[in-house]
Amino acid sequence: MSEFRLDIISDRWVIVAPERAARPTDFPVERRRAKDGFCPFCEGNEDKTPPELFALREPGTDPNTPGWRVRVVPNRFPAVRPDEPAASSENGLFKRIAGAGIHEVIIETPRHVLSTREMDVAQVADALLACRLRMRAAAEDGRLAYAALFKNAGAAAGASLGHMHSQLIAGPVVPHAVLTEIEGVRRYRAEEGTCVFCRTAEEERRTGDRVVAEGDRFLAIAPYASRFPFEIWVLPRRHAARFEGEDQETLGDLAKVMYTVLGRLDTVLGLPAYNTILHTAPFAMRDPDDYHWHIEVIPRMTGIAGYEWGTGVHINPVPPESAAAALRGEGR
Amino acid sequence: MSEFRLDIISDRWVIVAPERAARPTDFPVERRRAKDGFCPFCEGNEDKTPPELFALREPGTDPNTPGWRVRVVPNRFPAVRPDEPAASSENGLFKRIAGAGIHEVIIETPRHVLSTREMDVAQVADALLACRLRMRAAAEDGRLAYAALFKNAGAAAGASLGHMHSQLIAGPVVPHAVLTEIEGVRRYRAEEGTCVFCRTAEEERRTGDRVVAEGDRFLAIAPYASRFPFEIWVLPRRHAARFEGEDQETLGDLAKVMYTVLGRLDTVLGLPAYNTILHTAPFAMRDPDDYHWHIEVIPRMTGIAGYEWGTGVHINPVPPESAAAALRGEGR
Repeated sequence: MSEFRLDIISDRWVIVAPERAARPTDFPVERRRAKDGFCPFCEGNEDKTPPELFALREPGTDPNTPGWRVRVVPNRFPAVRPDEPAASSENGLFKRIAGAGIHEVIIETPRHVLSTREMDVAQVADALLACRLRMRAAAEDGRLAYAALFKNAGAAAGASLGHMHSQLIAGPVVPHAVLTEIEGVRRYRAEEGTCVFCRTAEEERRTGDRVVAEGDRFLAIAPYASRFPFEIWVLPRRHAARFEGEDQETLGDLAKVMYTVLGRLDTVLGLPAYNTILHTAPFAMRDPDDYHWHIEVIPRMTGIAGYEWGTGVHINPVPPESAAAALRGEGR
Repeated sequence: MSEFRLDIISDRWVIVAPERAARPTDFPVERRRAKDGFCPFCEGNEDKTPPELFALREPGTDPNTPGWRVRVVPNRFPAVRPDEPAASSENGLFKRIAGAGIHEVIIETPRHVLSTREMDVAQVADALLACRLRMRAAAEDGRLAYAALFKNAGAAAGASLGHMHSQLIAGPVVPHAVLTEIEGVRRYRAEEGTCVFCRTAEEERRTGDRVVAEGDRFLAIAPYASRFPFEIWVLPRRHAARFEGEDQETLGDLAKVMYTVLGRLDTVLGLPAYNTILHTAPFAMRDPDDYHWHIEVIPRMTGIAGYEWGTGVHINPVPPESAAAALRGEGR
């Protein structure tokens, strides 16, 4: 018994199809592990990355030497570059903008750690603090429209290195995934007079079926129209448009919830590859009513096949209610 | 030197970033092959699939026995089911529709063939003919809004079996990827007075840089804002809204172009995993001006990472001009 479910924010259908979980395959399934090789992100190898842009370090230690807790460096293979002159051209069907922007790597820990479970809440909070500072720096650049902060954990999630790190890519355009959500927030407010994310957080807390974890200021849920098995959204419970506007105490509560959520994910699913993605307001957005920032966590356990690419409709074999129960530690 | 390019049809940016191609990795890269095991799609194993719904067969042969050229069976692990009663509910934030619909497998050849190169043009034409007939049957069902026809080739593209096959999933909703393209077609026609796909085909033929192959009635291009390395679109050169409205002669020319395109892909890239996806008009669409059907071919050589999931903006390390030249057989 499958069903189509609507994400009313992005106006996007998914198919929840539990029977698909039993599908056999004639391809070998391999766990992908990082090679135990040299890692340029480990403490002591600071000269193997481009010079650092920022670090949280012990007093008295020099840049690009050991003694850091979180370290931010330019991506060696950047998708966009700060020194690219801003330029664009439009020729009928073909419009382009030069890839001017920022592409940074936030190394979350000096140790060669592959899971949040091997970190502690203070380390997660330090990493979030560094992310907030880099977001603020990107906002102040003036040429940039949006900064995307994300994490690739594991090769199947697009990581090229196993050592825990996040990335920030800021560029001259606002991505359409964010524009679509802003439209959804405006549409719902026009009809219902409130923020659809605030309403979702209230409703999910009330019913509890899809709640994964809760902090004083954040709620983690398996969203009703989850595209992926064990997809999780972490929402501020109080309305806020921008991640980078949050204070240190709020980041501290977020760190607790993220530590819980990512730790449970690694425990329940056995170190799956996953992505985390921050969705926050575009730099130029004026009205704080128009968006509600949040983090999406996407385990990468299922492949994306032609149906998904062709339609945008994802087939999810794990109902979010079952995923939430499993992540809360209840039997499925 | 990277650049943002706009797909003006879907209003979607991509980043073309050639330098990213050199990115190293500490994860092992493995070619995934199908196991040499039992295949339920091979001739002689007809009793290992659900009973056939349709087949192109030699005269005098019985259903579910050898003697077929193309065979259509229900998917054993369907995302939607024909016997599901149509039902829906809406409860504030949570809207659902029962998974009533059709999920079929089109087995393209009786032989255990993993590449179009091992087929011939007549076989490809037979497979397309069967696809058209099943699309027409879905259109006549009356309860269905859209049918998606797609192919998963290789495990990394979501296939569970290696034997060449396509699938059809028809359900009660029109997927938003198609709605977005329809909006783009209408927007361009309102501004420019013509179909954006027709104009694209004309412009691409004129410049030639991104042309991969050409038939009497079809054009294969590497699209200007390709999301994936070696992405290809196959377009009818003459305006047509629906695949299932095409006649046999047109399908014959399509078969030639698809045979060329998929064969070159397998030769140039060494049997990559890929998806093909038919984009066609929703069943209820009235105005044939509102859409232009086409096939998208998506090689799955790069992972989809957090940036892509978070923003919808794909980072493509291979400029489509280089991809087209390589696929035409020119040095890159």
